[in-house]
Amino acid sequence: MAITFKVLKEDEQTSARIGELTTKHGTFQTPIFMPVGTKATVKTLENKEIEEASDGLILGNTYHLWLQPGDDIIKKQGGIRGFMKWNHALLTDSGGFQVFSLSNIRKITESGVEFRHHKSGEKLFMGPEDSIRIQNNLGADIIMSFDECPPFHADYEYMKDSVERTLRWAKRGKMAHQNKEEQALFGIIQGGPYKDLRLHSAKETIALDFPGYAIGGLSVGESKAEMYQVLQELEGVLPADKPIYLMGVGTPDDILEAVSRGIDMFDCVNPTRLARHGSAMTSVGRIAIKNKKFEDDHSPLDPNCDCKVCTTYTKSYLRHLFKGEEYLGPRLVSYHNLYFLKTFMHDIRHAIEENQFEAFKKTFLEKYYQ
Amino acid sequence: MAITFKVLKEDEQTSARIGELTTKHGTFQTPIFMPVGTKATVKTLENKEIEEASDGLILGNTYHLWLQPGDDIIKKQGGIRGFMKWNHALLTDSGGFQVFSLSNIRKITESGVEFRHHKSGEKLFMGPEDSIRIQNNLGADIIMSFDECPPFHADYEYMKDSVERTLRWAKRGKMAHQNKEEQALFGIIQGGPYKDLRLHSAKETIALDFPGYAIGGLSVGESKAEMYQVLQELEGVLPADKPIYLMGVGTPDDILEAVSRGIDMFDCVNPTRLARHGSAMTSVGRIAIKNKKFEDDHSPLDPNCDCKVCTTYTKSYLRHLFKGEEYLGPRLVSYHNLYFLKTFMHDIRHAIEENQFEAFKKTFLEKYYQ
Repeated sequence: MAITFKVLKEDEQTSARIGELTTKHGTFQTPIFMPVGTKATVKTLENKEIEEASDGLILGNTYHLWLQPGDDIIKKQGGIRGFMKWNHALLTDSGGFQVFSLSNIRKITESGVEFRHHKSGEKLFMGPEDSIRIQNNLGADIIMSFDECPPFHADYEYMKDSVERTLRWAKRGKMAHQNKEEQALFGIIQGGPYKDLRLHSAKETIALDFPGYAIGGLSVGESKAEMYQVLQELEGVLPADKPIYLMGVGTPDDILEAVSRGIDMFDCVNPTRLARHGSAMTSVGRIAIKNKKFEDDHSPLDPNCDCKVCTTYTKSYLRHLFKGEEYLGPRLVSYHNLYFLKTFMHDIRHAIEENQFEAFKKTFLEKYYQ
Repeated sequence: MAITFKVLKEDEQTSARIGELTTKHGTFQTPIFMPVGTKATVKTLENKEIEEASDGLILGNTYHLWLQPGDDIIKKQGGIRGFMKWNHALLTDSGGFQVFSLSNIRKITESGVEFRHHKSGEKLFMGPEDSIRIQNNLGADIIMSFDECPPFHADYEYMKDSVERTLRWAKRGKMAHQNKEEQALFGIIQGGPYKDLRLHSAKETIALDFPGYAIGGLSVGESKAEMYQVLQELEGVLPADKPIYLMGVGTPDDILEAVSRGIDMFDCVNPTRLARHGSAMTSVGRIAIKNKKFEDDHSPLDPNCDCKVCTTYTKSYLRHLFKGEEYLGPRLVSYHNLYFLKTFMHDIRHAIEENQFEAFKKTFLEKYYQ
């Protein structure tokens, strides 16, 4: 088996839980946040820093790596892990989300998706077998089914057809998967805002018996209320003994709401993207480091953080780096933001352990969104 | 005394020598290369990496730091060292070179230089007392006299006046220097291509008795032959018991030629600037990592380098980072290029020690510029 999962502790008041996810390259406590390393690099950081600022499970993007440098080139260097010299665990997405969000002029058929390269315009095709073949080459510990990602508010009839097609693609991907002992293939639940489609998608995906499940088609522009509604409808429907992954979600409030509805795994570009724009996530909320008021501020980015950035540099120096458009600015704030989320996930697990999750959530949100 | 210097070994065939330079923040063997940290950051790198890829003496640019964030702000944080948390030694230039190379609409008077900010157009003034006051605030171990940097081929009459003015500025700067016990102020020799002016500048600057001397106005567009000619004319003229610094020079051939003419200290943006454009300095010459031929190349950047980049990553991965415009690419190659120069300077010192400098120079140049 490529992965095992067991629930260590359930919260008494919510569906929050602590789990233990074991992969071939590490064992992790859930809920866990996975930093995004789109092109086999978590932007600005080197492996040692990623080790320090994560729990050791990161994500790569199949679409980007397939196009550049190519999954064949990566395979010859031992997959993404060998290519980027990452000694811990990895998850790849299916490429589906990028096919639908980045590319142009697409045609969706039963076999897959025809589309054009998001920069060159080159004609490309990806179907479920392609996605799995590429992910087998990339060699991540956890890989994802190729799904269609329609807009959240696509009309009911379209969504119904799409959910059925995604189910057929899931089945075909499962058949195509060549490396079951090393790589765990997760199923993805779609269905937009439609409860019956979500439940149908869940039931039929679960019937295919995957080692884990993801909830897709969220964090794509719908309201927070709509997202939480979908999570609530799926609460208790998904198998309790499998890891549940909410794709693309990573703001602290969304993570807290999702954890309380039983979600175990998260990924998001948010912490590193914010960092590149000079926005730091701190225990007292987000701060824009470029702000003039930090010009002569000798305090750390986050007074409650023990990361190497907060124990070394002043806000004044970090502001100066951003004002000077220096590479080191995004690098230091990326490190801090990921470290912040790592600590946040640790605190969530600790709170669940102590049956204090609801209280922790309330206190955290008050401070962060004051 | 802010610094001491002693010659440990003289080459038998050339004027090359090994020296020991002691500052308040470290003792260094010369010839030494100093990485450039213009804005209190050696571009892309953090302090630990700079420690690994240098001998512990780096350069900051007075002009840039005066304008942003301001020397007053840096002073309050303990100077550049405190501001950027650099625990080793530092040198600052005078700002003169940038005033002359970056700024617009300047007017040179006896008091100093009127000019406009290179971006905002704001009207600014810097004279010798200003430069020294700012450098006192920035707090580097070695600081530089404020000099005029005319174009190398400025006409004789202009250069003659300029050399005299620079001498008067050097005297005023020396008078203005407030921190002689902590910061060593170096004099700068100008004179363009004119031997008599160079010798006059040297003689009169030496008469002011500085703890070290720099040769300025080189590496500004003149030919290599012209540069070497100037160095040759000054060989034996400068005091043997003081460190001699050739400003802005950093290509391997120029360093070798300068070392053989008695130069002890170097700085240049070349290694980090090349790195940002994907050009790596290696024992077998420069390579352009973006080249298609490295797409599937599993060998390190430099087969003879033991730096963390060469012992970890493949050319294929480094090429991919540059193709993907990832921050990590410039970062890793910057580290390697500085490490390469550190090793190169170490090899130069070792060769002088062994009376093999000429042979080393010949072999190195054959391999590097093959």
